[in-house]
Amino acid sequence: GRCAGLGLHNRPHVKTHKLIPLARLQVDVGAIGITVQKLGEAEVMANAGLRDILITFNIVGNSKLGRLAELARRVRISVVADSETVAKGISRAGQSAGTAIGVLVECDTGGARCGVQSPEEALKLATRIDALPGVRFLGLLTYPAKGTRSRMSAFLAGARELIQQQGLDLGTISVGGTPDILLDEGLSIATEYRAGTYIYNDRSLVLSGVCSESDCALDVLATVVSCPVKGRAILDAGSKSLTSDGISARGFGMARGSGEVVYGLSEEHGMLDIASSDGNLKVGSRVRIIPNHACPVSNLFERVAIVRGERVLGYATVDARGMVT
Amino acid sequence: GRCAGLGLHNRPHVKTHKLIPLARLQVDVGAIGITVQKLGEAEVMANAGLRDILITFNIVGNSKLGRLAELARRVRISVVADSETVAKGISRAGQSAGTAIGVLVECDTGGARCGVQSPEEALKLATRIDALPGVRFLGLLTYPAKGTRSRMSAFLAGARELIQQQGLDLGTISVGGTPDILLDEGLSIATEYRAGTYIYNDRSLVLSGVCSESDCALDVLATVVSCPVKGRAILDAGSKSLTSDGISARGFGMARGSGEVVYGLSEEHGMLDIASSDGNLKVGSRVRIIPNHACPVSNLFERVAIVRGERVLGYATVDARGMVT
Repeated sequence: GRCAGLGLHNRPHVKTHKLIPLARLQVDVGAIGITVQKLGEAEVMANAGLRDILITFNIVGNSKLGRLAELARRVRISVVADSETVAKGISRAGQSAGTAIGVLVECDTGGARCGVQSPEEALKLATRIDALPGVRFLGLLTYPAKGTRSRMSAFLAGARELIQQQGLDLGTISVGGTPDILLDEGLSIATEYRAGTYIYNDRSLVLSGVCSESDCALDVLATVVSCPVKGRAILDAGSKSLTSDGISARGFGMARGSGEVVYGLSEEHGMLDIASSDGNLKVGSRVRIIPNHACPVSNLFERVAIVRGERVLGYATVDARGMVT
Repeated sequence: GRCAGLGLHNRPHVKTHKLIPLARLQVDVGAIGITVQKLGEAEVMANAGLRDILITFNIVGNSKLGRLAELARRVRISVVADSETVAKGISRAGQSAGTAIGVLVECDTGGARCGVQSPEEALKLATRIDALPGVRFLGLLTYPAKGTRSRMSAFLAGARELIQQQGLDLGTISVGGTPDILLDEGLSIATEYRAGTYIYNDRSLVLSGVCSESDCALDVLATVVSCPVKGRAILDAGSKSLTSDGISARGFGMARGSGEVVYGLSEEHGMLDIASSDGNLKVGSRVRIIPNHACPVSNLFERVAIVRGERVLGYATVDARGMVT
């Protein structure tokens, strides 16, 4: 709905859920395609019939380029590059597949991760890609760090101007991120939006004011196994269920309903602060924990239960779980 | 070797590797049995022929108690309890299995996780267990936090004295932990040692002086996919490969050989600080990353490669991966 209102293509990132049925649902309700982070995720989704897949990760090495070529033969696959080395590899894969693989130049607009460092570098790489066989220059891509939209917009506008002055066709400017999804600033430059976490939401987004608890759709169902002292309940969910991700000073998750915080974790234990509700929870009580960060949590489980309220509607396999290569 | 020297039973914790062949190897070289954290791990190991399994986790709820009873029918299974509620459940499982399940009273000797809070509470629960059908009181268990051995020893000695005064048979005092494995202090009270991480070791143990880099046996093999600016290499291994565990101020892993630090992570990207060796690494270079914490990392992968130097001897499935219930 938000993308439609802004006239942006919606290309959701399925790394959050890794579920074929949710990827299909996202396309059914209007997404032009999906985003994945790794080749393995792309393969799972292509095998399930998804037809337009963007891999927002540099594909490097002959083994992976061979897999990319195989994918390019059967679905519309596009990728990113931030160096000539990466672009040349994709060019070889495209030639091997007998097609032209679409390439977006990844720009570092403040995230300090991958990406070319200036509009001038973006132009240089776009020009190089345009000259290579087996690839097709599509446009620009960035993952903006939270709160860096104006810097992002200036970078992308500068790069677009330089590239268009060279006569290159620049069809796509792809941006993303759930944390700033409701922010209009700097978005007029974009043609496409990639968001992942929005489909589940999580505690980090609640804490930063992006959503409320009732918008959070992914819980870890835990059982209280010990109440050894007043104020402390021990859950059977630790870092192997909730991950150690984020905001450690503020805990590792919260109980749905009460807001009680998982203040400590070991691998299989979660320490829940129940000082405010002592007496409600006892050994055997079940608690739904909203994790800090939904994406790595769904990656830990073989399947998820699909629920409406307390009713289990069914189970879904986390199809692309653990696909890190 | 260390356990033999101290006259301690060795009961290694297989949650670290979750591999059947390594569990068998540990028993073959002298372990009296294995430790697991969850029922699912116990089931995998029992199905593989392991015959003496300690579950160091409160088993709660009818579904899990049914699985415990099923296990108790076919292998020597022992468990912990830190409350009468937990003990009564195990009693029902033992009766259902037609056997007496061994129970250790878990003591909180400073870890502030599960466990009875005083020697007097330990006595009370031990006496209760001794009176219940379907269970057999075995002794005491604790997971001591690093640096708490003298407190641990005082607690356990006090509890042992009270329990023996009551005429109960106390055969086992089980302690554990890799971080203090080389420390003699307070160990004379113990009859059994549980260590997990020692089989692989990891960066946290290197940083705390317990081992050296050459003792670390678990690496994540990563590829450099981008060198966007001087001093920064981007790896294709992020929190979905290395986890966000621990020591965040000091990074999330280190490159074998160079000691270069993974200073930042996103889900599929690792940011490696290469300021000290600029020029050695380029796009396509491979780097072996020693993770901060080995245990949750092996849980993320479907299989591990067994290597000697650079030579791959074979692959092993991570049999008990994701067994969190």
